[in-house]
Amino acid sequence: MNIHITGTGSYIPDTIEKNENFNQHIFLNSDGSSIDSSNKVIVEKFQDITGIVERRYAEPHLVTSDLGAFAAERAIANANIDPEELDYIIVAHNFGDVKHNTIQSDILPCLAARIKHNLRIKNPKCVAYDILFGCPGWIEGVIQANAFIKSGIAKKCLVIGAETLSRVVDKHDRDSMIFSDGAGATVIEATDNEGGILAHETVSHTLDEAYYLYFGNSNNQNLCRDTRYIKMHGRKIYEFALSHVPQAMKSCLDKSGYSINDVKKIFIHQANEKMDEAILKRFYRLYRTSIPDNIMPMSIQKFGNSSVATVPTLYDLVLHNKIENQSLSKGDVIIFASVGAGMHINAMVYKY
Amino acid sequence: MNIHITGTGSYIPDTIEKNENFNQHIFLNSDGSSIDSSNKVIVEKFQDITGIVERRYAEPHLVTSDLGAFAAERAIANANIDPEELDYIIVAHNFGDVKHNTIQSDILPCLAARIKHNLRIKNPKCVAYDILFGCPGWIEGVIQANAFIKSGIAKKCLVIGAETLSRVVDKHDRDSMIFSDGAGATVIEATDNEGGILAHETVSHTLDEAYYLYFGNSNNQNLCRDTRYIKMHGRKIYEFALSHVPQAMKSCLDKSGYSINDVKKIFIHQANEKMDEAILKRFYRLYRTSIPDNIMPMSIQKFGNSSVATVPTLYDLVLHNKIENQSLSKGDVIIFASVGAGMHINAMVYKY
Repeated sequence: MNIHITGTGSYIPDTIEKNENFNQHIFLNSDGSSIDSSNKVIVEKFQDITGIVERRYAEPHLVTSDLGAFAAERAIANANIDPEELDYIIVAHNFGDVKHNTIQSDILPCLAARIKHNLRIKNPKCVAYDILFGCPGWIEGVIQANAFIKSGIAKKCLVIGAETLSRVVDKHDRDSMIFSDGAGATVIEATDNEGGILAHETVSHTLDEAYYLYFGNSNNQNLCRDTRYIKMHGRKIYEFALSHVPQAMKSCLDKSGYSINDVKKIFIHQANEKMDEAILKRFYRLYRTSIPDNIMPMSIQKFGNSSVATVPTLYDLVLHNKIENQSLSKGDVIIFASVGAGMHINAMVYKY
Repeated sequence: MNIHITGTGSYIPDTIEKNENFNQHIFLNSDGSSIDSSNKVIVEKFQDITGIVERRYAEPHLVTSDLGAFAAERAIANANIDPEELDYIIVAHNFGDVKHNTIQSDILPCLAARIKHNLRIKNPKCVAYDILFGCPGWIEGVIQANAFIKSGIAKKCLVIGAETLSRVVDKHDRDSMIFSDGAGATVIEATDNEGGILAHETVSHTLDEAYYLYFGNSNNQNLCRDTRYIKMHGRKIYEFALSHVPQAMKSCLDKSGYSINDVKKIFIHQANEKMDEAILKRFYRLYRTSIPDNIMPMSIQKFGNSSVATVPTLYDLVLHNKIENQSLSKGDVIIFASVGAGMHINAMVYKY
């Protein structure tokens, strides 16, 4: 028995938020002091580091579970399965449904129950639950689906990553420019075909790192101290990711039995282009090998960091030939990897 | 290989909130209209139906993840394991960490990462994630741990249910009196001993039932319409539970191969005493058998409905002889069952 991703779908919101839209923002340092650069300089520097030129925001009438359901419909159609056959719907997110212009996360009921409701799936045996695991939530959901199938309690699982970070950003924080909205979904099934999920690896570094990403106050100290937003210690995250992600990817690849030369694509969580390039460099350095051209498809330039949605969305885009010069062929060995709030890291080696 | 609960622990907050503390509340109907009964009558009627006389609220300086960590410490000590050996920390909750007198759920990072941080566990291979699954979250976490162990990716898992519903109640809603705070934790391990988890069953009814429990406005229409609280359609939940929980328990017991006469205890989620008694009655009626004395330990009278925490807390209390006339003996076959927001139902047959 091999366990495959048999269908993919994504939902990329229509609303484009360009970098120049931030020109009128009042950015402040975390201590509330003003920044000694013009917004033009701030935004240019931001673009240089992260690679992000524009991002997508969900339309005001939509919430995270809506985005997830749209992506799910496409993945189900792509897998060509009857949704009533699903044994699990696993939804990864970080903030639940946050209505436009409100500050509360709505996670009652869980988003998986809402998405199952939106999909009009009747079968009560389809278990619908949410996983909170930072940006690596979608990969972790696939790892859980893999375990359920292996242990004999499931045959077909729908794993969704959906997020609307635009609803939880502090507009006075430069980091707010990173975040975006979106959803990616995949159907995971046991098949008799060769390949599929070959190995996976997960680590949770919480001793010193638990609060590198956290829910904190606005940089504008005049705003309500009881209202909190997504916040990050960017430099610490960068250093952490560089020290630990390449090693996790290597452990995973080594477990799979394949060599570095077999790897055809790496789908990595997109939080920051420079960081991803540095991770890639260190990963190949661990094998004393040079980086092949076109190994790491990227969409961060146009879509920003949509957390749990970046990896499944990117995979869906490549499969549907929507990223220039990127495609997959039957039998290609690929690596999925992610890092995020927790701090959690995971990786999965997959034979397409 | 058999999979056992090898340690239990619970944390019951010290602060007692008695029914008479609600005498000064201004209760309103959901449409905002006033209620034609005195608070004394409202509270008496409430006590008659739910059995709840008093409940526990977390101290103001604590949040859900603190409660979870306290229960976890006790479960780890009770299992007599080195916490560094844990492969998973799975935390079930419904609202994340909500600070006293604030309205935002803080789920970044996930509570499992916070609890692992609080426990000072270093091992990065211990994967810490949250599951959102309504009140049945703790049982579902155990079912997931069971699958991870069976599939070969884990040996020892810590499964926690923790909740502070006192932070999300609408004080103008009579249903607010049901809710309480607490945490229960268990260590799940593969052992060579006989018994352990024999069967489990989960269903998610979302087509018509997804919003029977939901996040909604205060009954006091003068309060901010953007602030939401835990809300329920109590009558619908009652009818739903009676129609579906006994059947799920029966499916599970039948799968286990044991007969109704073998069942020594039933640990059921405690949302409402009358509802639990009615579920029990229907369950035994499915087998045309009478209900044995003392089959269903209860603690709702003193501890209210602490959601994901009720079942593991009750189990811990019985094992430690803290519920009058209730105890377990080696080899006893027991059933765990729960129902809640989603609407999800699960059951597990376990040989102690």
